[in-house]
This record gives sequence, C-alpha cells and structure tokens, in this order.
Amino acid sequence: MGKRVVYPGTFDPPHFGHLDIVKRSVKIFDEVIVAIAKKPRKYLLFDIEERVEMFQKMVEDIPNVKVKSFDCLLVDFLKREGVNVIVRGVRLFTDFEYELQIALTNYRLAGVETIFMMPSQEYIHISSTIVRDIASYCGKLEELTHPFVIKKLREKFGCS
Amino acid sequence: MGKRVVYPGTFDPPHFGHLDIVKRSVKIFDEVIVAIAKKPRKYLLFDIEERVEMFQKMVEDIPNVKVKSFDCLLVDFLKREGVNVIVRGVRLFTDFEYELQIALTNYRLAGVETIFMMPSQEYIHISSTIVRDIASYCGKLEELTHPFVIKKLREKFGCS
Amino acid sequence: MGKRVVYPGTFDPPHFGHLDIVKRSVKIFDEVIVAIAKKPRKYLLFDIEERVEMFQKMVEDIPNVKVKSFDCLLVDFLKREGVNVIVRGVRLFTDFEYELQIALTNYRLAGVETIFMMPSQEYIHISSTIVRDIASYCGKLEELTHPFVIKKLREKFGCS
Amino acid sequence: MGKRVVYPGTFDPPHFGHLDIVKRSVKIFDEVIVAIAKKPRKYLLFDIEERVEMFQKMVEDIPNVKVKSFDCLLVDFLKREGVNVIVRGVRLFTDFEYELQIALTNYRLAGVETIFMMPSQEYIHISSTIVRDIASYCGKLEELTHPFVIKKLREKFGCS
Amino acid sequence: MGKRVVYPGTFDPPHFGHLDIVKRSVKIFDEVIVAIAKKPRKYLLFDIEERVEMFQKMVEDIPNVKVKSFDCLLVDFLKREGVNVIVRGVRLFTDFEYELQIALTNYRLAGVETIFMMPSQEYIHISSTIVRDIASYCGKLEELTHPFVIKKLREKFGCS
Amino acid sequence: MGKRVVYPGTFDPPHFGHLDIVKRSVKIFDEVIVAIAKKPRKYLLFDIEERVEMFQKMVEDIPNVKVKSFDCLLVDFLKREGVNVIVRGVRLFTDFEYELQIALTNYRLAGVETIFMMPSQEYIHISSTIVRDIASYCGKLEELTHPFVIKKLREKFGCS
Repeated sequence: MGKRVVYPGTFDPPHFGHLDIVKRSVKIFDEVIVAIAKKPRKYLLFDIEERVEMFQKMVEDIPNVKVKSFDCLLVDFLKREGVNVIVRGVRLFTDFEYELQIALTNYRLAGVETIFMMPSQEYIHISSTIVRDIASYCGKLEELTHPFVIKKLREKFGCS
Repeated sequence: MGKRVVYPGTFDPPHFGHLDIVKRSVKIFDEVIVAIAKKPRKYLLFDIEERVEMFQKMVEDIPNVKVKSFDCLLVDFLKREGVNVIVRGVRLFTDFEYELQIALTNYRLAGVETIFMMPSQEYIHISSTIVRDIASYCGKLEELTHPFVIKKLREKFGCS
Repeated sequence: MGKRVVYPGTFDPPHFGHLDIVKRSVKIFDEVIVAIAKKPRKYLLFDIEERVEMFQKMVEDIPNVKVKSFDCLLVDFLKREGVNVIVRGVRLFTDFEYELQIALTNYRLAGVETIFMMPSQEYIHISSTIVRDIASYCGKLEELTHPFVIKKLREKFGCS
Repeated sequence: MGKRVVYPGTFDPPHFGHLDIVKRSVKIFDEVIVAIAKKPRKYLLFDIEERVEMFQKMVEDIPNVKVKSFDCLLVDFLKREGVNVIVRGVRLFTDFEYELQIALTNYRLAGVETIFMMPSQEYIHISSTIVRDIASYCGKLEELTHPFVIKKLREKFGCS
Repeated sequence: MGKRVVYPGTFDPPHFGHLDIVKRSVKIFDEVIVAIAKKPRKYLLFDIEERVEMFQKMVEDIPNVKVKSFDCLLVDFLKREGVNVIVRGVRLFTDFEYELQIALTNYRLAGVETIFMMPSQEYIHISSTIVRDIASYCGKLEELTHPFVIKKLREKFGCS
Repeated sequence: MGKRVVYPGTFDPPHFGHLDIVKRSVKIFDEVIVAIAKKPRKYLLFDIEERVEMFQKMVEDIPNVKVKSFDCLLVDFLKREGVNVIVRGVRLFTDFEYELQIALTNYRLAGVETIFMMPSQEYIHISSTIVRDIASYCGKLEELTHPFVIKKLREKFGCS
C-alpha cells in the first residue's frame, strides 16, 4: 500500500485554494484524505454535513481522494486511519505560530509529521473568510470557489 | 476633477493614528473619503452613526475630507463613488496576510488599487483595541484620541 | 529592597511555558509577581480564583514568587505594587504587534519598562490554547502542564 | 502641475515586477520618476548607464515616466526634483524593517512621504536576485523580464 | 519505482538540523537525494568536495539517501534526475520571501513542487552560520554537528 | 554585589538607539557592560579602538556603565566577567531568527539568559546602517547620534 496523507481543516466553506492543495498533494502521495473538523472553536457558517458534501462535490473527479469528518484530536484520527503525515498549505504569517505549535505537538505526542505546501500563485488571495465576506453581500464568487459551493452560499445568504 | 481616494475601516473608535493617515493622504491626493463599514464581522462598541459622528468631529477642520458609511462590498462602494484607489495604514504584522488578500481580491474583482501608507512614529502604539481597553478602565486617553471621542468613550463606560 | 518585576497574563490555564518564564525571571530579579487579569476581553475557561489557585500550586516551591489577580489597567496595578518592570515571553509572531503597542503605551503612560524573555526550546510548542484544545478531547497533557492543572482540566471537561 | 512621485531603487537588472509598479503608479499619479541609485552598498552586476538604458527601454512606450540616476542621499534628489512622495513595492518580509526605517528617516529629515504599493500577483515570484541567478546559468527569462534586459544578461554571462 | 525527492542546499557545513530533515524525509519518501550547490552567490568556507564528503559521512548509515553536487539551475538538476519534488526545512522568517519566490519560480518554470518540513524542536537553534561562528573561536560543537564535520572545522580554523 | 548584565554588539558606529537601551538597562540592573565585538563577520567602518572610544564618549556621564571589547565567543566573555544575562534591543523582524538561534545556543551552551528590550519609539528608525548611509553623503546626523560620533564619521567620509 502506498503513502497516504491527511489534509485537515475546517473548510467553511472549501474553495479553489483548498482544491489546489488537494490536486498537488495527490500527485506526490498515493492517497489524500481530506479531514474536516466537526466542531472547531470558532463560529461556523456551515455544519459538518454541508462541509463534507461541498468538498466531495469539489473533488468528485479526482481519484485517490477521500473526504471524511472527525470529532476528536487530530492525532487520534490519524492513528485510526493509520496515517502519520499531515499536509497543510503554507500560510504567509497569520497564525503560523499556532500552525507550528500544533505541528510540534503532533510530532511529540504521536510522531506525526507535518509538511507544508506552497500556496499556488493564482489562489493566494483566497481564504474562507474572504469567500464568506463576499458571499454575505451576494458578490461575485466564480473565480474563488466551485459552482456547488457558490450555490450553497447564495442559499445561505438569501441571494436571488 | 482631481484624484480621489477612499480610506476604509471600522474606526471603533477613530483615534489619532487614523487622523494622521487622513492628514497625510490629503496632502498627496485631492480628496479623501473616509468610508466606515456599517457591520463588519466583529463585535462593535459604537454603532455606525456614532462612528461617523466621531470621525466627522475629528476632521471638521480639514478641507477635502468626507466621512461616509457603507453597507455593501467595499468595491461596490468605490464603484458608486467613482474611485479606484484605497488607502490603508501599514500594519506591522498582524492580519497583514488578510490585508494583502483583500487588496489582491479588490484588484482582481474590480481593478481597485490599494496603497499602504507608513504609520507615523508617534502614533504606532495606538490602535482602536488599545483605546477601548484603556477606556474600559476609565484610563487616560488624551494622547491617544480626540476630546470628542474621549467624551463618547467615557459615557459608554460610565466614567465620571 | 531588591528589584521586583511583574509577569502579567490571563493564564487560562497556566502551563509549563509560563512556569519556565517564572523560574528564569526569579534568577535574574529579586521578586516576581505573577499578575493574573480578572476579566480580559476574550472568553475564559477558568474564573479568576481557579487561575490564581492553579498558578499558586505550580510555583509553591519557588521562593520569591507571588501570585496576585488584578482588575484594573495593568499600569495602575504596577503603580500600586511599586513596580516598574514587566516581563513577557517572546511570542514568535502572532499578536507581537499588539505586544509592542501595549509595551509602548505602558512606557508612555507610566514609564513602565517591558522586557521580553526568550521562549525555552522545550516549551515553545505549548500555549494555553493548545492545552485547552487537547484537554477538550481528554488527550494527554503530562508534558504540557502541572498535575494540578491537569486535574482541574479533566474535571472541567468531564474526562474520567 | 500635477502630482509627481519618485520610484527609487537599484534595478540590477529591472524586471516585470518593477515595470508593473511603474504602470500602476502612473495611473494614480501624473508623473513617475524612476530614480536609479548609482552606487548602493551592494555589489552590482550592471553599471549605472546600463541600468538606466535597460529601464528606459522597458518604459519607452509609457507616457509620463522619466528614468534618472542619482548619486546622493535620496532626500536630496527629491528636493532637487521638487517631489515629496516616494513609491515602493511592498516586500513581503525581508528587509521590511530597513524599508520602514528608511521611510521614517526620510519623513523626519525632509517631510518625504513613502507609499507602498501591492505586489501584482503574477509577479510576486520575481526579484532581481532570482533574475540574476537564472541568467547566470543561461536559463529561461522570458516570463521574468523585458527582451532588451534578457539580451544584456545573456551578453553579460556569455550565453550563446 | 517509488517517490524520490531532492533536498538542496549549500550545507557549509552540514549539521544536525540538516541530518534531521534527511531522516524525516526518508520516512515519508522512497529516496532522498541531497543536492549540494557547487557555487552559490555567497562566500563558502568549504569547497564542494569537502561538503559532499561531510554530508556523506553524516548519512552513511541511512539507506535510500544519496549525496550529489550540482552546478546548474536546480530545476535542470531535477529534470536530469527525473525528480519533481523539492524538500526544504521551514525557516522561521529570514529569507522566507526568497524561499517562496524560488519555490514559485521552480513551479512555473518546470512544474517542480516544493514542500516545507517543520524544524525539529531540538535543532531549531542550529544553522551553518552559528556552527561556523562557534568553530571560528574553537568553541564546543558536539551538540550541533557530526564528529567528522567537527574534525574538519577544527582543521580549518587551526584548533588544537 | 548587584545584578550585572552585558549589552553586546558591533556598534559600527554607536547611535542614540544604543544609548537609549543602555540608559533603560541601567535603571533595571546594577551595572551594564557594553561589550563590543572586535571582528564580526561583516565589513566594519571603524576599528575596535574607535568603536570603544565612541561608545565611551556617549556614556561618559552615566554611572554604572563600562565599555569593553572582546575577541572570543560571547559566552566565554560572559564567563570571564561572571555575568549570565545578555541585553538585546528587540529587532522588528530582520535577523530575528538569528537573534533567537544565538540566544538559544547561548542558553544551552552556557546557561546564559538573553532579555530583549523594547525599542524606544523615537529611535526605532535609527540603525548603524542608516547612520553610515547618511554619513557617506555627508548628510545631517544630529538627530541620530552623538556629536563625537558625528565628528568621527565626518572625518571618515571627508565631509568638510
């Protein structure tokens, strides 16, 4: 069996930046498991079922990608899946300290390795926060995320 | 007609750092429109009418400055005003990624240019958060913001 | 009387990184006062009495350390204690701007000096947020904080 | 007479990232003066005449742009030109402290304002250093800089 | 044939931080090629043969690691080796912009992916510069690098 | 005997930012030893005797400050002086990684503690590099450094 990795996140909602990381990871590794955290600390726009459904639509044509949710410590999810490598997109600065602390903690607690992948140039301006902000005013989202996610956002914010 | 720019923000409350950016922008451009966001994501101490009133008091003696509120995507406000340049104060690190993402998004969505101006040395220690924190304990604010804003803060926190 | 310093924070909960700063400060200065803020802006897991109790347990064998709470501007607490030096752990990036602004403000308002101490290599992956996150799933905390704090966390999250 | 700005640098060699800043500045201001420093501290690949010639070729079709060299303090060059606004591209991190120090110094010494413009997404991976590195191995430069600059680089490094 | 990656650098000299990245990479990938740049821009203490020899000693007991030198554009070396993934240690801040620019350039020029691996906590204080600085005063190096590298450094600086 | 600290650096030349750190340190500690490195890696404008003389002039009226040179590992200088605390000015970003690495190395090799002090707001725009750059064009230095240092710089650069 080949090398499997986990790409964890909140994905509220998923966007083309996330999709890009998945596409690039699956060229390097044999299987990518997108792991969506059920209840992170922050307020969420979409519940876990919606976020799983949106990510699944986004990757339905990409082989060797699975989308799962988890409701436990990430390291316990990895142990259950038999995976010991996490993939993360490089954030430029914000919260990078937290990223590093989490990565060090995961390595010390469970020997889990984290690898950071470069943001793709054409997607570095996209984040879930920006997608939500634009969606809240029913703005244009076609360059930022998948048609199915746009449809869900327009329903959520009552855009006609 | 000369070059007009928009200086957008939450300004909850406005302080001398904001005033400094306005004073410096108006020397470079022909008109500065202070654009106050009605309902940003974060919790606000002052409502939109109060924030507009406070900023207006602060700039009442400066020609070529207008204070307006907006309740839409910033790029739509700019389109309506016929302006395509945004002015922002350089933040040292925090949220700079978000600043950059917003700036790139505004450029791609609507061709809007963002220019960053240097923080003035004597005001780099001031932020709305610090002003609110000190005000919440009825501390001294004379070096940080305008007398009218101080009066409003003291009322809000019941300082005698 | 020797040189006294204040080590302020929220400490929700305290952990080995905090303890390390205390141990290192007390080798340099004659007395360290741990000053716990009663009601910071953010949501708290533990109330002020619990946080004071936990920190006291952690430092009970270290001479020249006092644990106190405060419910006012930090500079006013310092004035009351007759102390004019604050100790802070160097944060790598996040919120460093806010740290610097606070430090400059404290210096200008009250002549209070802030000194930053290096994070100890073996504790740089620990933060109160990470401790709370792991505790919320009843994960292993032995390397991160003191047995008494672990006991309190397990009670709080109902871990058997 | 309209608003004139200076865009200073070493430009060793100039590339599409520099050209992009010029094109965007000239939409905001009435005239842009590219000011090339004759002898900065660092080692240079091209002498001042070559760097002026290359930048001139790059901007020959853009109205309201002048290319000049200077061999004095930048603030003295600005005084001589009667200009008091400098344009700089936002560097992500490296040397940003030095940028800020220079900007503060120029403001204090001579009232010169510095404005930072956002890097264009498609050019953020380009720097003079990278252009020189690739050129030194006779690598492909078509996406990075102007044909005339490529010709000069290929001569310099003896690429056939 | 399995997944092969390249770990490029100057390695002047190699140290335990480099060794740690190799050890961790080889757990994730099937083969790691350490690629040592013959003549980077900066001044070097050791020539290319010495650096190759030192790194080979350091990894002689680790299977699936090769040490090679290159004297061309990195992307051309990768093409020759038939590899399209680069591994880099995450630098905290310094030169990260340059890292990112290089990574983006390599991706655009040749479709080469760069992945960043977390620095190991016990080695984050080590860099080649620090190793050279301590060696230049004949200081203690046992915790920082391999006995063979220490021997070479002591010869180089004439330490008895 | 009270608490003694070492303030190390190259000081090529010393300026008001350095003087400010000395003045603030000497209020917190009982003695400050300014330790000037004889031969750091970088090119120097002033030799060690000149740098010692300039710093001595700058602090001649401040009690409890000594100026010394050293030509060994800093930790060995500290051991000889019987001091185990280093004071450094907080640099905003540049080279902060190197600062941290040095600090961690000094702590591990010799138990030496490093404390970082906040830059004073009115001096954050000053660095030795900027002082040298302005001096090289015989520019105005009165706000940046001490009259004796200015005299030395003007001699060095042949300013009348």
